[in-house]
Amino acid sequence: METIESILEMKAWSSTTKAQGKKIAFVPTMGYLHKGHLELIKKAKERCPRVVSSIFVNPKQFGPSEDYANYPRNLERDRELAEWAGTDVLFVPKAEEMYPEDYSTYVEVEELSDVLCGASREGHFKGVATVVMKLFNIVQPYEAFFGEKDAQQLIIIRKMIKDLNMDIKIISVPTIRETDGVALSSRNKYLNEEERKQAVCLYQSILRAKEMIDSGERSAEKIKAGMEKVIKEKPLAGIDYIEIVDASKLKKLDSISGRVLVALSVKIGKARLIDNIMVEV
Amino acid sequence: METIESILEMKAWSSTTKAQGKKIAFVPTMGYLHKGHLELIKKAKERCPRVVSSIFVNPKQFGPSEDYANYPRNLERDRELAEWAGTDVLFVPKAEEMYPEDYSTYVEVEELSDVLCGASREGHFKGVATVVMKLFNIVQPYEAFFGEKDAQQLIIIRKMIKDLNMDIKIISVPTIRETDGVALSSRNKYLNEEERKQAVCLYQSILRAKEMIDSGERSAEKIKAGMEKVIKEKPLAGIDYIEIVDASKLKKLDSISGRVLVALSVKIGKARLIDNIMVEV
Repeated sequence: METIESILEMKAWSSTTKAQGKKIAFVPTMGYLHKGHLELIKKAKERCPRVVSSIFVNPKQFGPSEDYANYPRNLERDRELAEWAGTDVLFVPKAEEMYPEDYSTYVEVEELSDVLCGASREGHFKGVATVVMKLFNIVQPYEAFFGEKDAQQLIIIRKMIKDLNMDIKIISVPTIRETDGVALSSRNKYLNEEERKQAVCLYQSILRAKEMIDSGERSAEKIKAGMEKVIKEKPLAGIDYIEIVDASKLKKLDSISGRVLVALSVKIGKARLIDNIMVEV
Repeated sequence: METIESILEMKAWSSTTKAQGKKIAFVPTMGYLHKGHLELIKKAKERCPRVVSSIFVNPKQFGPSEDYANYPRNLERDRELAEWAGTDVLFVPKAEEMYPEDYSTYVEVEELSDVLCGASREGHFKGVATVVMKLFNIVQPYEAFFGEKDAQQLIIIRKMIKDLNMDIKIISVPTIRETDGVALSSRNKYLNEEERKQAVCLYQSILRAKEMIDSGERSAEKIKAGMEKVIKEKPLAGIDYIEIVDASKLKKLDSISGRVLVALSVKIGKARLIDNIMVEV
């Protein structure tokens, strides 16, 4: 596995690889890799002859009071894991090169970006869309891989690709969970033992929603109340949001029908955790 | 010359052409072609084996009170001229396909977009950056050609390309003028005979600025006053703005030095005309 830091070198590698007729699969990450990321890389390797994974903690997607400086980083470990999972090139750009001092261009997927996580994280998805556009232009992938845990991100990136007529196929990979159901996340590192135990409430509340829907409940209000009750059983958990929206426009639903996203964000200790389930009703 | 309306077909043509190792030059226009556009197409043809010109009156770059509906259109004449100048494919997308009902993604070059023309045309350059990004993704050019008459547009597109790590070379072509100095513009069509005569004041004011700079004047205030005087001699001309800014950040200058853009916008009858000169001091 090769590690590339420079944007120009990464572009050159991709151009050469494409000129050789080899399709590039791309897995963008913020590093501190866990099994969820490794699944993305493995899937990428299955589908394309060359895999580029990137590690870039994108400053533009963190708010001023968020955890950019403290976001967990461990490049040595990431390098080993990325290689083990099938990465050919690990792209690790520098923030100073990605965003030089006079940087001023942004991509924004309006309407989808100011709800759910976007409501509590102003500017977050503008930062995400912008960095993904930049990385796509640098890496020039045929396919790009994203986890379903970040459901809103996935929907926004798909919309950006469609609206801007980009030719990149987005492949999503189901959320990977610990044995107790907690979704893997680099931010789980922030949790102490007791917090980690209580973090299971996100998954439990999703199971509760699924149960209610399976047994015929269609009132979003009632399902959300059921989920809220599950979260409130854990004293360390503070609800950021619990929402039930349609899966394409992310509009709040009163009565659920069609493809529906049940999503929530919960603060536990220093971590803001998210989880979701996509349901077809 | 082939005419293509569908986005998918245009993409397919470009992919095939690139796969054959042929570089594509691209000239995006809003149609109603004049000699300025034809110069762009000729230059494109000199530099690349294949030339795509597009005609698309982009609704997103017109404000609600602007001239979108009345913008001059003449596809038959444009077709002849485009072919004559060297176009291989004329791309004429439909607004409904470019912006389907749920369209919501925008590209914005901040800081550069709310000054000069952007100050009086809110959202204009967001519309420009967005459509240019879309057209670039569809046509996949090696080089794209823009006129220097639209100086701010040119600067914004260059900044977008750089910030978003796009691999398209932007080639600019000097403003083409009538014998009396009036810059060619599709909007000149709005002028009646007397208005057309008085429209020469834009060029005259620019010549005045040039003279003053050449003879050592460095005060932006004084140069702008000199230009204003020239415009005010024409009773049908109403100044929208006269500005002197640095050519990269478009910041207003008190004392001019370095690469400087002298730009103005003047309303004459129903037309809002622009002109500019780039000066190295």
